[in-house]
Amino acid sequence: MNKKVAILDSSLRDGAQAEGISFSVEDKLKLLELLDGHGIDYIEAGNPGSNPKDLEFFARARAVRLKHARLAAFGSTRRRDVEVERDGNVQSLLLADTPVIVVFGKSWDFHVTDIIRASLDENLAMIRETLAFFKARGKEVIFDAEHFFDGYKNNPDYALKTLHAAVDGGADTLVLCDTNGGAFPSEVGKIVHRVAELFNVPLGIHAHNDCGMAVANSVAAVENGARHAQGTYIGFGERCGNANLSTIIANLGVKRDYQCLPPEQYRNIAHVARHVAAISNVALSEREPFVGNSAFAHKGGMHIDGVNKASHSFEHIDPERVGGQRRFLMSEVSGRRMILDKIWEVDPSITKDDPVTDRIMKRLKEMEHEGYQFEGAESSFELIVRKQLGKYRSFFDLMHFRIIGEQPANGEYGSSAIIKVRVDGEDEITAAEGDGPVHALDRALRKALETFYPELANVHLTDYKVRVINGMDATAAKVRVLLQSTDGDAIWTTVGVSTDIIEASWLALVDSIEYKLLSLEEARRKPADGG
Amino acid sequence: MNKKVAILDSSLRDGAQAEGISFSVEDKLKLLELLDGHGIDYIEAGNPGSNPKDLEFFARARAVRLKHARLAAFGSTRRRDVEVERDGNVQSLLLADTPVIVVFGKSWDFHVTDIIRASLDENLAMIRETLAFFKARGKEVIFDAEHFFDGYKNNPDYALKTLHAAVDGGADTLVLCDTNGGAFPSEVGKIVHRVAELFNVPLGIHAHNDCGMAVANSVAAVENGARHAQGTYIGFGERCGNANLSTIIANLGVKRDYQCLPPEQYRNIAHVARHVAAISNVALSEREPFVGNSAFAHKGGMHIDGVNKASHSFEHIDPERVGGQRRFLMSEVSGRRMILDKIWEVDPSITKDDPVTDRIMKRLKEMEHEGYQFEGAESSFELIVRKQLGKYRSFFDLMHFRIIGEQPANGEYGSSAIIKVRVDGEDEITAAEGDGPVHALDRALRKALETFYPELANVHLTDYKVRVINGMDATAAKVRVLLQSTDGDAIWTTVGVSTDIIEASWLALVDSIEYKLLSLEEARRKPADGG
Repeated sequence: MNKKVAILDSSLRDGAQAEGISFSVEDKLKLLELLDGHGIDYIEAGNPGSNPKDLEFFARARAVRLKHARLAAFGSTRRRDVEVERDGNVQSLLLADTPVIVVFGKSWDFHVTDIIRASLDENLAMIRETLAFFKARGKEVIFDAEHFFDGYKNNPDYALKTLHAAVDGGADTLVLCDTNGGAFPSEVGKIVHRVAELFNVPLGIHAHNDCGMAVANSVAAVENGARHAQGTYIGFGERCGNANLSTIIANLGVKRDYQCLPPEQYRNIAHVARHVAAISNVALSEREPFVGNSAFAHKGGMHIDGVNKASHSFEHIDPERVGGQRRFLMSEVSGRRMILDKIWEVDPSITKDDPVTDRIMKRLKEMEHEGYQFEGAESSFELIVRKQLGKYRSFFDLMHFRIIGEQPANGEYGSSAIIKVRVDGEDEITAAEGDGPVHALDRALRKALETFYPELANVHLTDYKVRVINGMDATAAKVRVLLQSTDGDAIWTTVGVSTDIIEASWLALVDSIEYKLLSLEEARRKPADGG
Repeated sequence: MNKKVAILDSSLRDGAQAEGISFSVEDKLKLLELLDGHGIDYIEAGNPGSNPKDLEFFARARAVRLKHARLAAFGSTRRRDVEVERDGNVQSLLLADTPVIVVFGKSWDFHVTDIIRASLDENLAMIRETLAFFKARGKEVIFDAEHFFDGYKNNPDYALKTLHAAVDGGADTLVLCDTNGGAFPSEVGKIVHRVAELFNVPLGIHAHNDCGMAVANSVAAVENGARHAQGTYIGFGERCGNANLSTIIANLGVKRDYQCLPPEQYRNIAHVARHVAAISNVALSEREPFVGNSAFAHKGGMHIDGVNKASHSFEHIDPERVGGQRRFLMSEVSGRRMILDKIWEVDPSITKDDPVTDRIMKRLKEMEHEGYQFEGAESSFELIVRKQLGKYRSFFDLMHFRIIGEQPANGEYGSSAIIKVRVDGEDEITAAEGDGPVHALDRALRKALETFYPELANVHLTDYKVRVINGMDATAAKVRVLLQSTDGDAIWTTVGVSTDIIEASWLALVDSIEYKLLSLEEARRKPADGG
């Protein structure tokens, strides 16, 4: 029988503390839905009292029907010498209106006396009373014992007392945190083992990666009795990051017989990791265990030979179990199944042996080689499939465009675009100004096409992301542009890649408009089932 | 007394198997000298028989006077059914003319029977005879027991027999390899402990990162008796990479009392890691433990407050011990104290009540409101401080620039820039083409300024990041551009914000150049103390 390990993802909270991470509310909602669909048990966001953006997030999250996950708000115990009912932060946590509250409190005596400057007894009261406050209001309460391992090493009795205070307050789970990321797995294993002997409440682990051992610490904790693991899906977080949940889940759920996800979700791990990276606008390391592009890439000749004889000769698991792809760096092979799923969305009659399947695979490989990535840009991918299936038509021809940006002496910078398009033999030339070259081009293109397709009037862009693919060449590096568009109802995302940001934006812009016009045409063709 | 753990760096051999790594002979020699100067014990390169580049490397390496390291060539045992003296690969290892030979042989019975297709006894003879061959020629011989952990789990008796064969052949060190990277620290610890009880020969560990636990596996091995650790300095290698030596060395040598480097070298760890990354042309992850740019970066307000009260409240070690730098990320949450620290770097005489402090705070708030973010862009922040303190001068005036991007009918997209600058009353007008508008502008600006400031010739951009700040307005949204520049030695990062990506890039570009020229001017002004 598999042992359940509950997973709590803190990308929206601890992850947002990472350098370079800056989520919009839209990004947070996208991550919420993605991780919920993946079968993550708890999704932790911030404290609505500390940040108006979090308040908006929780308000909008209430409208999301979660399939699996329980949403958690996160905040501190009451302050010292303040009644719990009068503590603003405690009160504001209720505004989140979540079924779960994660409360963190101090377990390291030094932090109590020197950082928050409370008495050791007062700290225990702060923990107990804050948890009891939320339990009395029907919440599931998770206690994050901050700095637990440092605390235990310094003063084990006091560290354990803080856990007892949490249990007295009604904690449903006790999470031992390595907040500074300084613990070693051998220590974590021993300490968790001791604590597990003393408490009947489920234990959890929250590790940071400052020693490069956050995953190992989490695994050691589970091997010694923890049944709840916290982290962020692709590992970003304060300083060196949080424990990487995609790695932990693959280690425990695929390589060992713990249950961290619904069984059918393990093969989506690589896909979800890439999607999280796309939404968060961070680069997923090529070497990331299980999910990186190189994770199952073989370059050495003997390794390739060995894998061809027996894959487990140089692979610790079958890559398909986590949705990864074996790649021989000379001759690339690819993950057929996922692509077939996409093909069937456009035309369910295509078989996997149909020659068109091969052509699509080949085209996809070529484009990935150029730097395309279709996670989070499914509309562009659908257009590629349509092109190969003959279910595509072009709606306009670009004759030419020119963009001029100039900064005159002591003047304001300005951009303008001139564009000429042809539709059914008829030409339209127009121009527009904009805040920046892409804005000018976007406006000019729309203005020219609305003459022919008035339904484009209510389409507009809602997000624009730029990712530099290979940083080394700096401004001459390739960029990947992701555009999100909406007509007020549907939302779709398209992608373009080029060494030139304007050309990359142009490609994504064209995809966005063609996708909309194709969808309209299909909807008109079969008005009954709504397509 | 500190326990010595010998360190073997395989960046030149296993590291070269990584996707994207391609060393010139020059690169390899640079790495050799860098790692030798750092006090690494063994530096492993390839087999001169398998690669003419390796032959040239070993020939030229002979002329390098190593201060500390011993150079090692790496190759397989003799093939099956071939006399060791007649095996071409064995013979060619001698051509390397190194004091140390690393011989790898199979320890997993399955690999013996199914991959190299030898009998189990023949494999033992291959190991014993190959090692004896090199010992008879005066070499120090390290035996890499390939797939040792998988082998031990499958057939412990046979795995141990391969180690006995190596001892019979005269092995100086027995290295237990987790070649597929599938082992967990708890297994590695137990198995190493068992092996250490059975052998008097020093044991080593060679781990791969496929489960994200290569560092933890190496640490577990050392905790259980291993006294030799292999890896690559910043972790690149086949698939998910090798064990990261910079992390291992910091964990064992700084956080524990093992001796991995000469004592004065620990504080060079971060510097050496960045240097290895630069030579290898790979990006060092921002979150890399101990050495990444974010490793000691604090963003959360409570963390910043805690570190100011006592650094170990949120830092597992003092960053200076590994040459890292504490950074308080400039963000909405950062307080006055942190800004004062920055001001004092420029002028220690300013007090916190000085009116200029308020002016700087006010300017910072305004710029943050405009969308600036100075985390990771400290050079731009320093320029703001300098401007307010009157410790700034402009090095050129922009008269105007114009960028033209055009896509002619069915043609290739192209960008060009025209720029006119004035320095000390003298004008320079020039033009350049580029891959994209920013690239064209960057080239044109540099070309124009090098006429006046030839020291800019060795400055180049190493990273270019674009972040859309408020996604809602899409292409008219503000963008934040981060540029990372280097002169081959120092690295600095600057930022620009605008609704126009070209203007944002321009602002960051100007900051980058002004920062460099100001630094040069300061260095010239006080040549004695070296600044």
